[in-house]
Amino acid sequence: MPEQIAIQDQYRDHSSHCYGCGRLNEHGLQIKSYWDGDQAVCRFQPRPYHTAVPGYVYGGLIASVIDCHGTGTAAAAAYAAEGRPMDSEPELRYVTASLHVDYLRPTSIDAPLELRGRVTELKGRKAVVEVTVTANGQVCARGKVVAVQAPADWLKDR
Amino acid sequence: MPEQIAIQDQYRDHSSHCYGCGRLNEHGLQIKSYWDGDQAVCRFQPRPYHTAVPGYVYGGLIASVIDCHGTGTAAAAAYAAEGRPMDSEPELRYVTASLHVDYLRPTSIDAPLELRGRVTELKGRKAVVEVTVTANGQVCARGKVVAVQAPADWLKDR
Repeated sequence: MPEQIAIQDQYRDHSSHCYGCGRLNEHGLQIKSYWDGDQAVCRFQPRPYHTAVPGYVYGGLIASVIDCHGTGTAAAAAYAAEGRPMDSEPELRYVTASLHVDYLRPTSIDAPLELRGRVTELKGRKAVVEVTVTANGQVCARGKVVAVQAPADWLKDR
Repeated sequence: MPEQIAIQDQYRDHSSHCYGCGRLNEHGLQIKSYWDGDQAVCRFQPRPYHTAVPGYVYGGLIASVIDCHGTGTAAAAAYAAEGRPMDSEPELRYVTASLHVDYLRPTSIDAPLELRGRVTELKGRKAVVEVTVTANGQVCARGKVVAVQAPADWLKDR
């Protein structure tokens, strides 16, 4: 099987400045998501300073990774549903309408986070993605991203 | 009226390493919240790289500021409810059990965010804080933080 290109690395340049997932944002997290069967998976190693208290991951960082993994999963699923690759026209990108995170336990900063996202609804311009966040084999957080297709004026160079 | 000390600047050193609000986290956002009547207010200027697309604020950053403003508001309210200052014992700190954000419109990155948090429930070890995020005079997002008092083993030097 050929090596997959990350979902976010298939975004157009004008959609690649996001602090969470943009490959062109040199200050950002640059998260990467890949398909694994019917789920999308993202592995991210928090940096030492992404702490809540020393040793544990900051909840806002977890929310951020869920957000970008969710919208990326939504975009990739929408192209797949139309049976066309992500570099085809028209461009499909999703923005977050709402984000919900349940923090189940403190999340160790020593291990990579593994996020798994599953599209539970894809209808019209809306997608819902449910995400689990695991570290050291334990589910530490669950997230739900309600995403909508980005308006046309976001999908341009600026 | 004497100048207020920010809620987060009254946290103990061991509680001041948070990426979102810790005064000792040199890589972090170092948000600051202050009482304004029965609300707590936080003003935060996103950095130029905190973008979703150029010109607009990244949703994960908005979630992060809501998170720390919410837990800070909860802590300050809990001390106030007990009629004692934040430097008194025992220490009260809140961690996030769940975070919900509704993104109402794109948020311009050119203006400071103004967050206003109001405690809508404070009972036992639980607090609920509802937050509005305004930029350029428009409410751009609403958040709800369900917070619980941090366990004793988080409140120590490590």
